Amino acid sequence: MSASDFYDRRETRSVDERRAAQLAELGTLVAKARANPVHGQRFQGVEVSDISSLDDLARFPILRKSDLIGMQGENPPFGGLNIVETGRLRHVYQSPGPINDYDGEGPDWWRTGRALYAAGFRPGDIVHNSFSYHFTPAGSLFDQAATSIGCAVFPAGTENTEAQAQALVTFGATAYTGIPDFLPRLLDKADELGLDAGSLTKASVSAGPLFPSVRQGLNERGVHVYQCYVIADLGLISYETPALEAMVVDEDVIVEIVRPGTGDPLPDGEVGEVVVTALSHHELPLIRLAIGDLSASMPGPSPCGRTNMRLKGWLGRADQTAKVRGLFVHPEQVARVLKQCGLDGRARLVIGREGDRDTMTLHVEYAGDAKGLTDRIESAIKATFNLRGHARIEAPGTLANDGKLIDDTRDF
Amino acid sequence: MSASDFYDRRETRSVDERRAAQLAELGTLVAKARANPVHGQRFQGVEVSDISSLDDLARFPILRKSDLIGMQGENPPFGGLNIVETGRLRHVYQSPGPINDYDGEGPDWWRTGRALYAAGFRPGDIVHNSFSYHFTPAGSLFDQAATSIGCAVFPAGTENTEAQAQALVTFGATAYTGIPDFLPRLLDKADELGLDAGSLTKASVSAGPLFPSVRQGLNERGVHVYQCYVIADLGLISYETPALEAMVVDEDVIVEIVRPGTGDPLPDGEVGEVVVTALSHHELPLIRLAIGDLSASMPGPSPCGRTNMRLKGWLGRADQTAKVRGLFVHPEQVARVLKQCGLDGRARLVIGREGDRDTMTLHVEYAGDAKGLTDRIESAIKATFNLRGHARIEAPGTLANDGKLIDDTRDF
Repeated sequence: MSASDFYDRRETRSVDERRAAQLAELGTLVAKARANPVHGQRFQGVEVSDISSLDDLARFPILRKSDLIGMQGENPPFGGLNIVETGRLRHVYQSPGPINDYDGEGPDWWRTGRALYAAGFRPGDIVHNSFSYHFTPAGSLFDQAATSIGCAVFPAGTENTEAQAQALVTFGATAYTGIPDFLPRLLDKADELGLDAGSLTKASVSAGPLFPSVRQGLNERGVHVYQCYVIADLGLISYETPALEAMVVDEDVIVEIVRPGTGDPLPDGEVGEVVVTALSHHELPLIRLAIGDLSASMPGPSPCGRTNMRLKGWLGRADQTAKVRGLFVHPEQVARVLKQCGLDGRARLVIGREGDRDTMTLHVEYAGDAKGLTDRIESAIKATFNLRGHARIEAPGTLANDGKLIDDTRDF
Repeated sequence: MSASDFYDRRETRSVDERRAAQLAELGTLVAKARANPVHGQRFQGVEVSDISSLDDLARFPILRKSDLIGMQGENPPFGGLNIVETGRLRHVYQSPGPINDYDGEGPDWWRTGRALYAAGFRPGDIVHNSFSYHFTPAGSLFDQAATSIGCAVFPAGTENTEAQAQALVTFGATAYTGIPDFLPRLLDKADELGLDAGSLTKASVSAGPLFPSVRQGLNERGVHVYQCYVIADLGLISYETPALEAMVVDEDVIVEIVRPGTGDPLPDGEVGEVVVTALSHHELPLIRLAIGDLSASMPGPSPCGRTNMRLKGWLGRADQTAKVRGLFVHPEQVARVLKQCGLDGRARLVIGREGDRDTMTLHVEYAGDAKGLTDRIESAIKATFNLRGHARIEAPGTLANDGKLIDDTRDF
């Protein structure tokens, strides 16, 4: 491997060097955020001086995406979380929710050039970009990523497949950005029209699952596909590299995996909710944004030489809210029951149905003396949910590592 | 008026200063173009050293948009006219035709920030951009124009009107870019939804006629609307200013008004075909591009203080090709007949119908001794069109100043 395999030398710095740099960046970000009254209110009790290591990030409250939508609705467009006024941003966007997003100055504000570089995009590539540029940032985000590397971009957007296939061949596109499933359709359409799309040899895909069969089919056509994990709120989170082993976290974000419904970081490898802090976005600081997805960290450095934390990719939705006997049951409530009972192992509230009645059983892993624990848990369930439920003590390592605090097994 | 009324001081420089600067820029552009074999072939017989004044531009051949489409089709994507290879451009685009366009580096490659500035757009404005970003450059062009001034842009594109009205109000948009007719629809939709779109007070519109009734209706709502004349091939040509008197030509283009079908510049005020040379676009030089529109210059400087040439706006399409008795009749052929007969005044080939037969009569303005002229013209018509036609000599000032070399009066 040579230096040119990497977007910058930050990708291969030591873990300590990264942590030291990110700690300084976090301090700057928090100081800026605190000057804003809405952030200041949320951060009560945590001072900048309290942050002496990245682990202190866990002292800050989680910002749930659902709460963010609520705050934006009450105080549009950004719930008062922006430090830069709306007209001084570069773009404003709106994604389904609706949730309002933005970008600021710079050639690649969303930092996704790093993912494209890892996918083999280089200066002079001609990129066919099939993400929409309208309302949501996806199109512009990948456009910036590619142009900042020195590629030329064709903004295909969501126009019809035949016109896209023709344009792809006319311009001799060498690379694709878009959702995974559209690329085979686009290439098949070119075949159908008798056009040679052989110039296209690389792709960076996002916003949908890349099924192994799709990847294999594309590989067989000579197209190398890499996934990246990008969200409209803050851009790149993590990206596949030529190692094709998990996804390496971007250098300008801190990712935590927490127990769903809480802000409590989980041990390495445990499946939990993805929480992201965007270090370089000072216009509207997003500190500990719980994005509603489940993932898990993968231990050790990537064989490609990048040294940052790795994620196993998307493992499901963290929002496991269910309705039981007419009442909502939230992961936050399950977490509260566990905390009240002094439990910190895996746990799982299984919702089932017996006859015409919903049932709830909270399974908890516990290694010590369980005397009286079942009763204590069942009392806490009643007090927390205002619903009766059962408790079952399980041996450690028994429950699935899938990030589910609530497992709704009912057939509807 | 103060300096802040102008985008830059070039707008108010003296005519001589502008001509001197543009002459130097033209020399640079031509020298770059000549190094490319396709341009070199087209420019045979004209050397850079031949250009001693802007009038020498008329020595270069016209590049018709229809020819450009043909060249691109034979040698995609750019007919070999590009000096920078495709992958080193910033974006490539495709507009109906199909015609392939591009942009290069810089915050406002299309130079349309100047038009928005004249329309009152300022840093901090929140711009609702309703042009499409997909395939064609319109969306990106106005996006660059606004962000380069320091505005924030919402890329609404062509999404549905109700969603656009809601987003406009959510973000408190202060300015609009898009086609003229969509703005009243958007504001009416906001009214219908009970939303207050009163934040919006300015608009820059293009790509369609702005009817006086539409302008007045918008003015009555407190929205000040300015038109600009922008094409996908090279960006800004001219723009309205607060004087609202004709459209001032951009500082980085040279506009000529020529007799349709020829490269011959017309006297000031005569209606003819718009021919544009883009001085700042070195990636793919467009020298004397005949864009197919009719306009006329308006004498004198603008009351707003800008000193550049002014255009009367769009006065029709220059492509007047007609089919007579099964054969195509082109403006170029009419121009050839006139040249053969030594005529340089207004002329008009009127195509009519008598019974079941097409007729052609070439009306020409001529002040001198017309002896034998009618016969000479009719011979030239026969030789040029392989069709019989009549000639009629008219007194100077008799024919309409509407740029029509061919006037097809038949009812189909």
